[in-house]
Amino acid sequence: MPPSNFQLAGWTTRNHPSVMERMLRGLSDPQMISFALGLPAPELLPAKEFAVCLDRVLQKNAVSLQYQPPLRSLKSHIVRLMKTRGVETSEDNVFLTSGAQQGANLLVHLLLNVRGDVILEEKTYTGFQQILKPFDPRIFVIPSLPNTGFDLEALSDLLASGVRPTFFYTVADGHNPLSLNLDLVKRQSLIRLARAYKFPIIEDDPYGFLNYDEMPLPPLLALDSEFVLYVGTFSKILAPTLRTGWVIVPEELMRQLGSLKEAADINTATLNQFLINEFFETQDFTSHLLNLKTEYARRRNSLSEALIEKFQSFARWQNPANGLFTWLEFPEWVDTEKLLEHALAYQKVAFIPGHLFNVSESRAGSNCVRLNFTHARTETIFDGVGKIASAIEEIGFR
Amino acid sequence: MPPSNFQLAGWTTRNHPSVMERMLRGLSDPQMISFALGLPAPELLPAKEFAVCLDRVLQKNAVSLQYQPPLRSLKSHIVRLMKTRGVETSEDNVFLTSGAQQGANLLVHLLLNVRGDVILEEKTYTGFQQILKPFDPRIFVIPSLPNTGFDLEALSDLLASGVRPTFFYTVADGHNPLSLNLDLVKRQSLIRLARAYKFPIIEDDPYGFLNYDEMPLPPLLALDSEFVLYVGTFSKILAPTLRTGWVIVPEELMRQLGSLKEAADINTATLNQFLINEFFETQDFTSHLLNLKTEYARRRNSLSEALIEKFQSFARWQNPANGLFTWLEFPEWVDTEKLLEHALAYQKVAFIPGHLFNVSESRAGSNCVRLNFTHARTETIFDGVGKIASAIEEIGFR
Repeated sequence: MPPSNFQLAGWTTRNHPSVMERMLRGLSDPQMISFALGLPAPELLPAKEFAVCLDRVLQKNAVSLQYQPPLRSLKSHIVRLMKTRGVETSEDNVFLTSGAQQGANLLVHLLLNVRGDVILEEKTYTGFQQILKPFDPRIFVIPSLPNTGFDLEALSDLLASGVRPTFFYTVADGHNPLSLNLDLVKRQSLIRLARAYKFPIIEDDPYGFLNYDEMPLPPLLALDSEFVLYVGTFSKILAPTLRTGWVIVPEELMRQLGSLKEAADINTATLNQFLINEFFETQDFTSHLLNLKTEYARRRNSLSEALIEKFQSFARWQNPANGLFTWLEFPEWVDTEKLLEHALAYQKVAFIPGHLFNVSESRAGSNCVRLNFTHARTETIFDGVGKIASAIEEIGFR
Repeated sequence: MPPSNFQLAGWTTRNHPSVMERMLRGLSDPQMISFALGLPAPELLPAKEFAVCLDRVLQKNAVSLQYQPPLRSLKSHIVRLMKTRGVETSEDNVFLTSGAQQGANLLVHLLLNVRGDVILEEKTYTGFQQILKPFDPRIFVIPSLPNTGFDLEALSDLLASGVRPTFFYTVADGHNPLSLNLDLVKRQSLIRLARAYKFPIIEDDPYGFLNYDEMPLPPLLALDSEFVLYVGTFSKILAPTLRTGWVIVPEELMRQLGSLKEAADINTATLNQFLINEFFETQDFTSHLLNLKTEYARRRNSLSEALIEKFQSFARWQNPANGLFTWLEFPEWVDTEKLLEHALAYQKVAFIPGHLFNVSESRAGSNCVRLNFTHARTETIFDGVGKIASAIEEIGFR
């Protein structure tokens, strides 16, 4: 790339092309089997129901194509939806956003100063890391523990040593990328720390409604509505294209969020708000979600069967209780970045190497991969795992 | 509002509720005649065509509900659309955004450092001012001249005195709020300055396609594609709800814009991209636009007739060549903020006082108002102007 004719903001000089970016370019190959992205199953996207709902909305609501204030009845559906998770909230605390990504982005802009202090765990959703880049924050990294999530003791020690984070970010259900749920004690302890040290928790919850077998635990928001700023989305339970999500926050933050939203994109697409509202009012959302969970649980199990077949004594994984991913750990000597390069070129299969989620420069997790199980059908899942196994043998890791 | 339980970012302490915000709350009253916002005519929104297109898209494109890379064929339609304005560009320079607001927002994040230097003209679209707030920039303000736009000499002097702005922001066609078009000499001079002092121009162009009678001038981008960063949108020529716009920039900026976009909201709603693409391919966009322009020119003329009837020797205005607004200047003693308070309470009519667009604390323009002419039908326009005239008399300004 030639240099620009004029000066760009300082952060851009530190924003180099990532391995992830280079890699994702390969995914447009139609022959590629991809476990890389967090995509819903295309067959389960409610295209027909959407067509019916859109038709009806376009016939009766002229304002559905205009700029409009957020649709109060959609907020009511969100309030009821949150109730199924044990959250008591009100329309006055629900703020509509263009998906969870924007929700998290607006919250960061609400809270963080440039070069502010942040505590993150080592393995953090890369889209959240992207939000932070222009702020050039001072990041204190605590370890991600393989089976239980962020290292509570490390967090507690940092706080005791005087670090005062602007916020703590976490995915309590279906952690991305580790695909685990925080246990109740950890949830409660985190909230105790937040209250004691007066920092807010950003609870990013794209996967909370996609629980497969365990009795689900309450989200952090159900345990504390003063220090937990909750981010939800319809992307994974209805469709990504809706670009509609929500944030639940104390009412005193709504006005400042409104300023940020207006500056970001004025308002959340009105037609999509009407569409989702119509879906809730005329379709059976509960069955739709149940269908989704049943099929995703099946695919998760298929992935597990395929992994047993190919990697039983070679790799380790746990079936996740929530979300879209399985976290797979190979022996220490498997360099999954090299494996990926080989797999893309010779086996046409994609996944994301574990260390690419690291906040620090550490290579921790470079023997792990994150595998999506919701996008591909069972046969393809088996094929794909077979290809990964072949790549491992071809490259001599086994 | 009670204070928050935790610390917010520094800029929020300077973000007080604006007169504009307070005022806009009154607009939800269905009895209100509003000249305040930049809303398209609801009758001209292509709801039926959208229903047909959406139905077709949902039948044939399963991926239309997924996350997807930007639709190349939509970019081609944008390239062709820009050609009608005299712009030669390519798909590789077109970046899709969630409306023009996001386009401008991403460009600011690409260019501006916190407390960076910016030159703005006194009267600037408030949504752009909102974008700047969290950056706390040092703003050098140059006058807005009533009939010709920003004060070129003042800009030139500032630059000569050593000020080096991160960018200069302008709306060349249908300036918001002054509703004027920059003349060709000013366009060329601005570009000469940008090249000489190496700063980019953000050309915000929501109204460029809505030209009513004059032979339109080329946008800044047609005159220079190296220093002009162009922001376009479908909001005013198709529908606001699409939340789909575009930015045209030198190719070397695309990757950094990509990072910002991912951090902002991942991608521009896929279904909307397919919908617009389908509209271009199966509907007659040219006739649609012509219809829109014909009706808007008619409403602009109706507003002018109503103003002649009520304010001929009292106020001054020019019929705008582009856009959605007429800028109306009352005698110096008319305080339009007081007028508005009275008008909202006793006449149920809304508009925006001119000084609310000021970048500085100046009251310049407090005897002016911005009137939208695209949203209301002719009868309502006449009614509304009558109500403003009554308010002026009741309050004793005439």
